[in-house]
Amino acid sequence: MFAHTKQLQYDVKPDRPDAMFAAKLQEVVGGQFGEMTVMMQYLWQGWNCRIPGKYKDMILDIGTEEIGHVEMLVTLMARLLEGAPSETQAEAAAANPALAAVLGGQNVQHAIVTGGAAMPTNSQGVPWNGGYIVASGNLLADFRSNVAAEAQSRLQTARLYNMTDDPGVKDTLQFNLARDTFHQQQWLLGIEQLIEDGYTDGIEDSLSEEEKTGPGHTFYHFTADSKAGEGRWAQGTTLIGDHEIQYEPGLPLTDDLQEIPAPDPLLHATYDGSKGPGKPGNAAGAYGQGAENVLSKAKEKLTGE
Amino acid sequence: MFAHTKQLQYDVKPDRPDAMFAAKLQEVVGGQFGEMTVMMQYLWQGWNCRIPGKYKDMILDIGTEEIGHVEMLVTLMARLLEGAPSETQAEAAAANPALAAVLGGQNVQHAIVTGGAAMPTNSQGVPWNGGYIVASGNLLADFRSNVAAEAQSRLQTARLYNMTDDPGVKDTLQFNLARDTFHQQQWLLGIEQLIEDGYTDGIEDSLSEEEKTGPGHTFYHFTADSKAGEGRWAQGTTLIGDHEIQYEPGLPLTDDLQEIPAPDPLLHATYDGSKGPGKPGNAAGAYGQGAENVLSKAKEKLTGE
Amino acid sequence: MFAHTKQLQYDVKPDRPDAMFAAKLQEVVGGQFGEMTVMMQYLWQGWNCRIPGKYKDMILDIGTEEIGHVEMLVTLMARLLEGAPSETQAEAAAANPALAAVLGGQNVQHAIVTGGAAMPTNSQGVPWNGGYIVASGNLLADFRSNVAAEAQSRLQTARLYNMTDDPGVKDTLQFNLARDTFHQQQWLLGIEQLIEDGYTDGIEDSLSEEEKTGPGHTFYHFTADSKAGEGRWAQGTTLIGDHEIQYEPGLPLTDDLQEIPAPDPLLHATYDGSKGPGKPGNAAGAYGQGAENVLSKAKEKLTGE
Amino acid sequence: MFAHTKQLQYDVKPDRPDAMFAAKLQEVVGGQFGEMTVMMQYLWQGWNCRIPGKYKDMILDIGTEEIGHVEMLVTLMARLLEGAPSETQAEAAAANPALAAVLGGQNVQHAIVTGGAAMPTNSQGVPWNGGYIVASGNLLADFRSNVAAEAQSRLQTARLYNMTDDPGVKDTLQFNLARDTFHQQQWLLGIEQLIEDGYTDGIEDSLSEEEKTGPGHTFYHFTADSKAGEGRWAQGTTLIGDHEIQYEPGLPLTDDLQEIPAPDPLLHATYDGSKGPGKPGNAAGAYGQGAENVLSKAKEKLTGE
Amino acid sequence: MFAHTKQLQYDVKPDRPDAMFAAKLQEVVGGQFGEMTVMMQYLWQGWNCRIPGKYKDMILDIGTEEIGHVEMLVTLMARLLEGAPSETQAEAAAANPALAAVLGGQNVQHAIVTGGAAMPTNSQGVPWNGGYIVASGNLLADFRSNVAAEAQSRLQTARLYNMTDDPGVKDTLQFNLARDTFHQQQWLLGIEQLIEDGYTDGIEDSLSEEEKTGPGHTFYHFTADSKAGEGRWAQGTTLIGDHEIQYEPGLPLTDDLQEIPAPDPLLHATYDGSKGPGKPGNAAGAYGQGAENVLSKAKEKLTGE
Amino acid sequence: MFAHTKQLQYDVKPDRPDAMFAAKLQEVVGGQFGEMTVMMQYLWQGWNCRIPGKYKDMILDIGTEEIGHVEMLVTLMARLLEGAPSETQAEAAAANPALAAVLGGQNVQHAIVTGGAAMPTNSQGVPWNGGYIVASGNLLADFRSNVAAEAQSRLQTARLYNMTDDPGVKDTLQFNLARDTFHQQQWLLGIEQLIEDGYTDGIEDSLSEEEKTGPGHTFYHFTADSKAGEGRWAQGTTLIGDHEIQYEPGLPLTDDLQEIPAPDPLLHATYDGSKGPGKPGNAAGAYGQGAENVLSKAKEKLTGE
Repeated sequence: MFAHTKQLQYDVKPDRPDAMFAAKLQEVVGGQFGEMTVMMQYLWQGWNCRIPGKYKDMILDIGTEEIGHVEMLVTLMARLLEGAPSETQAEAAAANPALAAVLGGQNVQHAIVTGGAAMPTNSQGVPWNGGYIVASGNLLADFRSNVAAEAQSRLQTARLYNMTDDPGVKDTLQFNLARDTFHQQQWLLGIEQLIEDGYTDGIEDSLSEEEKTGPGHTFYHFTADSKAGEGRWAQGTTLIGDHEIQYEPGLPLTDDLQEIPAPDPLLHATYDGSKGPGKPGNAAGAYGQGAENVLSKAKEKLTGE
Repeated sequence: MFAHTKQLQYDVKPDRPDAMFAAKLQEVVGGQFGEMTVMMQYLWQGWNCRIPGKYKDMILDIGTEEIGHVEMLVTLMARLLEGAPSETQAEAAAANPALAAVLGGQNVQHAIVTGGAAMPTNSQGVPWNGGYIVASGNLLADFRSNVAAEAQSRLQTARLYNMTDDPGVKDTLQFNLARDTFHQQQWLLGIEQLIEDGYTDGIEDSLSEEEKTGPGHTFYHFTADSKAGEGRWAQGTTLIGDHEIQYEPGLPLTDDLQEIPAPDPLLHATYDGSKGPGKPGNAAGAYGQGAENVLSKAKEKLTGE
Repeated sequence: MFAHTKQLQYDVKPDRPDAMFAAKLQEVVGGQFGEMTVMMQYLWQGWNCRIPGKYKDMILDIGTEEIGHVEMLVTLMARLLEGAPSETQAEAAAANPALAAVLGGQNVQHAIVTGGAAMPTNSQGVPWNGGYIVASGNLLADFRSNVAAEAQSRLQTARLYNMTDDPGVKDTLQFNLARDTFHQQQWLLGIEQLIEDGYTDGIEDSLSEEEKTGPGHTFYHFTADSKAGEGRWAQGTTLIGDHEIQYEPGLPLTDDLQEIPAPDPLLHATYDGSKGPGKPGNAAGAYGQGAENVLSKAKEKLTGE
Repeated sequence: MFAHTKQLQYDVKPDRPDAMFAAKLQEVVGGQFGEMTVMMQYLWQGWNCRIPGKYKDMILDIGTEEIGHVEMLVTLMARLLEGAPSETQAEAAAANPALAAVLGGQNVQHAIVTGGAAMPTNSQGVPWNGGYIVASGNLLADFRSNVAAEAQSRLQTARLYNMTDDPGVKDTLQFNLARDTFHQQQWLLGIEQLIEDGYTDGIEDSLSEEEKTGPGHTFYHFTADSKAGEGRWAQGTTLIGDHEIQYEPGLPLTDDLQEIPAPDPLLHATYDGSKGPGKPGNAAGAYGQGAENVLSKAKEKLTGE
Repeated sequence: MFAHTKQLQYDVKPDRPDAMFAAKLQEVVGGQFGEMTVMMQYLWQGWNCRIPGKYKDMILDIGTEEIGHVEMLVTLMARLLEGAPSETQAEAAAANPALAAVLGGQNVQHAIVTGGAAMPTNSQGVPWNGGYIVASGNLLADFRSNVAAEAQSRLQTARLYNMTDDPGVKDTLQFNLARDTFHQQQWLLGIEQLIEDGYTDGIEDSLSEEEKTGPGHTFYHFTADSKAGEGRWAQGTTLIGDHEIQYEPGLPLTDDLQEIPAPDPLLHATYDGSKGPGKPGNAAGAYGQGAENVLSKAKEKLTGE
Repeated sequence: MFAHTKQLQYDVKPDRPDAMFAAKLQEVVGGQFGEMTVMMQYLWQGWNCRIPGKYKDMILDIGTEEIGHVEMLVTLMARLLEGAPSETQAEAAAANPALAAVLGGQNVQHAIVTGGAAMPTNSQGVPWNGGYIVASGNLLADFRSNVAAEAQSRLQTARLYNMTDDPGVKDTLQFNLARDTFHQQQWLLGIEQLIEDGYTDGIEDSLSEEEKTGPGHTFYHFTADSKAGEGRWAQGTTLIGDHEIQYEPGLPLTDDLQEIPAPDPLLHATYDGSKGPGKPGNAAGAYGQGAENVLSKAKEKLTGE
């Protein structure tokens, strides 16, 4: 359960409105790596964490902080949008370069849809969606995703920082830069802790006993004159398993010519008959054996005969 | 430019068709971390890499390999869908548990839309989209995303591996597991190389000189009775900058009460007048100064007066 | 079945082209509450209305009118886009503030994709989608959605009205404002009629006999210093059921600590074993009883034994 | 800013796992009217409310409660998914109707993507998106949307309630039914309060002085033999303005034949020349006057001449 | 403007309900080539047709017919869904293969969201969206898209026809098959008419005078051992322009090595400096000339100096 | 499997950066008919082609070429974006028409997300998605879709060509125009070849023996005063089957009044009882016959009794 405090976590006090910058800020509110993403991603990971205690609590602590970061940016947006142009006659714009500049760089949904406030979209107006978030139940894989999200998010914040000279906005972004720097480290430290606690060797390798050996330590190159062999990824020892990395041209490891079977005639695919008649489309056919065979197994199980 | 070879990179030879498993495999073809994602992500990163040589070539080598992985899985799907049910009368299903099982777990677009082949969608039929990929131009941030993508992708492959006992399918997945294990390491080694080459300290901290100090090394906890303080992320030294990590309750660092300004009256937002009249919606107002002021600056610049 | 008349329902005669305003108008063509939404929403509700006569006919009458409203706005857009800029050299724009203003606020798909006409998208270019519409088969719930859609749609129209001074455009929007005013009332009158005809008490409360009593008339507050208790929603009598509304702090009504069960080991979730081994992943386990138990029930039913 | 409590707001204790029901529950987690929608909708409306005090606090109180409702349902899902099938060989399913039933109705992302937990999607796997939420800054329009959302959400919950006989699940849903009944009333009482406080007459009619008179109180019928005239919406007095509602056949109110202008020749639209040559595509042409005219106005303003 | 008739265009009278087939039919209601697509595509093309008379009227005639086709299929769906399962206890399903079959193949939104009716989605639950439709203003290009849409739509209908043995459903689909056969021809005849009327030579080749000559009649092959040279597309004469088609290996026509320029330093892209310093990010730099140069042109134009 | 060459297929050498044109070019990179669409569409069709030899090879040859076209355009974009504005203070823009023009027409994701490079989106920022592509397994239907895609793509390229005067960009687009002209013909020649090889008569008419006769050669008109009868599509002989085309008013061919059945009472749809009680929602009801009937059939099949 959650509770709310009227105070924000940190100041969001722009010196002056700036509708153009508000349009850009949408990217870190509702974009792929905006605050909505990390908020939902961490809450979701925390709720689904199966280890009570330090891991679950840590993830939910940060998820809860991130709700407040969405709140901060949405507030900042409303302040930046104060008095944003609602009159937009083209003639007026034509005669006024200041107006023209703002109109061109403004997000018109800020006026038409929200009445002077943020949208739950990215900087292009694409609605935030659940396809951005990652929560697999596997903490190593998820912490890797979290490091990446914080790195991308911080990079976008740094780029935005260079696009404004409003001291109040810069002050807020300086806070966000710091949190993103710390959060990257925190998720990396989370991986260290997972290794220390014996949950992983740092590489997601569940079922490692099943995987092929050779392709697990070979760099294949597919470009003529590739210089990829000069990098650490193509020489030296693997990070786990102590294999010598091989560097080889990417060649087919099979003579399988990518042919596919004859189609079910009821699906009207174009076909020359070269592979014989298509298998009839029914469940029995789907298992490469007669329907009676499958049914008799089912009967056997159900009736004990 | 690209060229094509008819041979596949590796075998995709199921022992028998299995429409239910084909429906599940869609997740690693066209899902958030499917082969379409890594293929497009690496090609895009490679084309936009600004360092000619080992980095650009390496990224494009792997991107090119991944086109062939999409090809492999699409071929595997067509083979798994051989003779998949095109007749689906409910009565037949009612009398035949085998048919019922297959129908329930089948993706009907495999019959209706593609005529017995894969779809460019995830396991729920959601079309693959460009919002899944990451290519920022910053190699540290992107390699972090690539490690995460390979970890999530491998995890999904391992889960799928447990859902089939077809030796041919397992053989293909063993190859994919191995490549995902190697690729995770390769991107981590890429980060090592970036550090060695002096591009980064391993944390995305562009403009680090601008960020706030305290929030850059403090863990704030927001949950009553949080155990988060027991983890490495809340104690010891930061990974960069040699700070002692602080562990503190998450309190407001401001008394800003999240109030937002009076609305532009032309936007018809509900308002009680408590903050005075809303600023009129025009560009001049947008900058907290008279229009004449802005215009005179423009004039000054343009006419030299 | 439908028939078409070449005359429009009402005039759409702009005094002059205005590509910037056309870009904004997209919001009420293909946005969340645009004409495409109400057209599809009402047609869909009407086709699925299970009461022949005045209700079904009324809904379809309005749905049919709305097809004509899409037609009107699409026509208006083509006229506003007459001679819209197809030449967009940056230098020309740089030297011509009028051109710069128009280019910045223009939707380039109007030129590149449609050749001077409307798009089936909102003002940000996001395609209209079926996720906007509501048609539940329950007329009370749907009429509530329709009142809301007309209110939001009218509000957006009023905001747009303030953004143009073209008398022809204003004339069209005055017609639309009037229809939206009337349609809000009509759906509210529809609710009155539903109550009068005995279909509802005005609150969607199917299965009201099953719901919990206390939480059905209590306002929980979750914000420190909340003033929410001062409103009518937190005091006085409920609209149905004649309960006194309670005003209480939002506290947990359970000591359930949000823990979740041990994971299926085949899914490779991170887990410390604290809740014992995960249940094996098969259907029998899914019902907390042996597979044999379920199967014996199935057998019993099928074989009569 | 927000804080978190480990206790849930109310019990979510299913008597037994049920992967099929979990698949259905996704609709009220991440669907159009799921808990994610109302949570984000109310938080967004609250943050953007421009009236400090009872309105803003009330909206944020409920938004904060809804975060906890997402938490409740996500927890319920993980419990329903305990031991959900991870082995799905078709032959096993064929021989076991219990397994077949569960497999067919199961959401495979619950296994492949989340490892036994909820997805941020609807019951069809479509990711939740920001296009579902409504926050216009106009409280009447938004409260209308909120009543509708609670009515639709409660209806879906009632339908789901009829699809399970698990006492623990029913207990949770009884709590949700009660909250949805109360929340519908609360938003309707909010409208009463808005009227009492003088913000609205109950119909969103900003700029009512501008709208056309006749179309504001006329029901147009477009269906042969329509019975729509028998309803309250087609007779009696309007809810505001005291007009007698007219009932008239839907006829064109103009002789405008939906013709559109000649295309810009640079856009290569098909055209017979019947309306003369298309206007050249540049900004000057866009205003039906010479470029010099626009430029001279701009110059006049900028240079004061 | 449109009018409505209560009679359907053709019978939609299933002999019996069939929830599984209803789930499949969604593909031709709200899928990529469903009736919603052709309805919106033709209405949009018709409204934006710039040739009054036979072309515009023909397109709108068919668009209007298609509204009635959506109506037919939505009605068919509600009838197929009569009495569709609302009780779905897993145990009942486990014991009843008939119920299991239906549940597995059923679309649960048909119960939870619409109360026994169609959804505006495809067979996977993905909402119909405006990105499916095509309306470019160029009749040749659009008629080509229309032929394709009718061909794909008819193919899907034929596949569905093979999946039911309900005589009433088959009767409806026989009507749809016929219309799709006719409509394909009609759009092809439309192209013949366009050629006869002198609008096109049958290939969209606007600006043909500008295009490169060689690449306009050469087939490049990129696959080792490609047999593509055996087809008509690689030999003989082009359809327009009377060129002999060339068949050549796909080789680079340039030595451009896909390098890209130094990045703007304010964007923090990873870069080795090998191409010199990045150009500073401002508009003047964007045109490869000093800002003064651009500004002086602007001044010249505005002030006449 | 694929291989990569560092050389591009053709030059992409703009004379100067142009961020505004880069924003427009996104349409033909990641739009409905951009290079990503044809690349994925042809690869997918080729992989799923069931005729080894000239057809499969031809489709894959072109698909492989198109990967290189995406590469070309992505490279062109990075070059056009060199030094694109990263500083965007509104005051600077206000005083500098050149900057204002560029800012308004620029895609801010080019700076914030990619650091000066292309996005996998269309010109409005909507991510490319798999719902754009077509691959049905039926070569006639797919070649029709391919002709249409090339025609739309070429039209958009021609429109873009008119929007730039950069000789380097024009040179690249001249190459693309030529390929699109050729590719249209190639797919039409593919249809000729399909006819010659006996796969089709040129109209997708699978199951033609089942379709209704009359509606297969009748043009129905639905508009008062329609002139559609003047076109070739409404007179003369059909392209297949040698029928005389009929021209008739669109009248209902049934007296079916679009009524739908009584709802399942457990779904809480609004209903007046006029059609009797709704059928109970269970599988037996779903087949219009007693559950016992279905079950006895199942038993019969399974137990042989």
